[in-house]
Amino acid sequence: MRVVVPFDGDDPKTSLSPVLASEQRHAFAAAMLRDVLDALDSVATGFDIDVRVLSTTPLDADTLGRFASADSLAVSVTVDERPLDAVVNAAIDAAGPETPVAVVMADLALATPEALGRLLGVPTDAPEATAGDVRIAPGRGGGTNALVVRHPDFRVNYHGASYLDHLRVASEVGASVFEVDSMRLSTDIDAPADLAELLIHGDGESTAWLRDSGFEVVAAEAGAAVRREHE
Amino acid sequence: MRVVVPFDGDDPKTSLSPVLASEQRHAFAAAMLRDVLDALDSVATGFDIDVRVLSTTPLDADTLGRFASADSLAVSVTVDERPLDAVVNAAIDAAGPETPVAVVMADLALATPEALGRLLGVPTDAPEATAGDVRIAPGRGGGTNALVVRHPDFRVNYHGASYLDHLRVASEVGASVFEVDSMRLSTDIDAPADLAELLIHGDGESTAWLRDSGFEVVAAEAGAAVRREHE
Repeated sequence: MRVVVPFDGDDPKTSLSPVLASEQRHAFAAAMLRDVLDALDSVATGFDIDVRVLSTTPLDADTLGRFASADSLAVSVTVDERPLDAVVNAAIDAAGPETPVAVVMADLALATPEALGRLLGVPTDAPEATAGDVRIAPGRGGGTNALVVRHPDFRVNYHGASYLDHLRVASEVGASVFEVDSMRLSTDIDAPADLAELLIHGDGESTAWLRDSGFEVVAAEAGAAVRREHE
Repeated sequence: MRVVVPFDGDDPKTSLSPVLASEQRHAFAAAMLRDVLDALDSVATGFDIDVRVLSTTPLDADTLGRFASADSLAVSVTVDERPLDAVVNAAIDAAGPETPVAVVMADLALATPEALGRLLGVPTDAPEATAGDVRIAPGRGGGTNALVVRHPDFRVNYHGASYLDHLRVASEVGASVFEVDSMRLSTDIDAPADLAELLIHGDGESTAWLRDSGFEVVAAEAGAAVRREHE
């Protein structure tokens, strides 16, 4: 299976601008990307996966970390400056109708090998693994955080409440949909409030980066929030 | 297994006051409770579950719907005006050390039989089913939306970021913890923004109630929001 990971190398995570400067957003986004690649590396799929990071800019060795060189996981980088939909749909076209394509967002820093395994469909003989021409892990607010395309006519459309759009597209092309029900895949780290989720549930590089940057969880009236102790 | 469902019959869902009047909050909370009971009724557990609604007030037949009389699911109502922790811990005490107790919040209106099955541990021979003296489905913001207690010394503490508190309690009493990774169980319907989740992903009575009350999803810059067409 081909797994594509779209990544904004230009100006990542602008929605975190209220709490992180540009340089910090670059470092944090890169740490999240490595967390996602780490989790993909640990999925015991029983089938080959090749991972392509689809980046708007070339990525240096620091950004890719151990995945910059040959490693257990085959990771390649394709630079494509076009908008997200065009880039992902080109990747689906390039894979051809016989190759399933998974699209995993680079800010799913809470993704575990287990959650990604459920997305990709392992163990392969489980009923939940074979269900769905299109498999979608919805994000909060109607987003599509991860999906697997196993139907030749399905193409993505990430504008607006993309989850509902993707249901519509699937229906139009006659593709069945399976929902991958995962809190971890539903939590894209986008807004400042999402940082609390990472601090509570994360254990990867991006969580360590946040802690090192002075962020910590504080109990708030309606749940948890984050506070920054130092910069 | 005993499943307890705490319910605020007095003044439910005060956090929805900005968009729903008191009478409407009562009707909506009751519809969500019935959705949760419906989902529990459809879990193919392979073992008996008895469900106890722990309510701060007596519940009339309308609130319980088809669960008011003998039905496929054994539902009883216990009225207990004490705060949440005291009520739930009394239920754990009453069940005794040999009976696992699940605690499922009454506002998990997106819960599916599949998600609840994963919480309760079915199929019972799956490795994920047997893991964890305490099984927790975390909610957004550090909450504990659902849990299963299978350790004699574990007691709940729902104040603040209860997920972290529950990890601490489990550690103190030597109980292992298994995380139930479910978007649907992580989504408690509490704040107005949560209504969008229900409109996007729900198909039960509470979703129908929202639609009938004029709520609809609108695409917003950062995902989805809700709008009310009429009252």
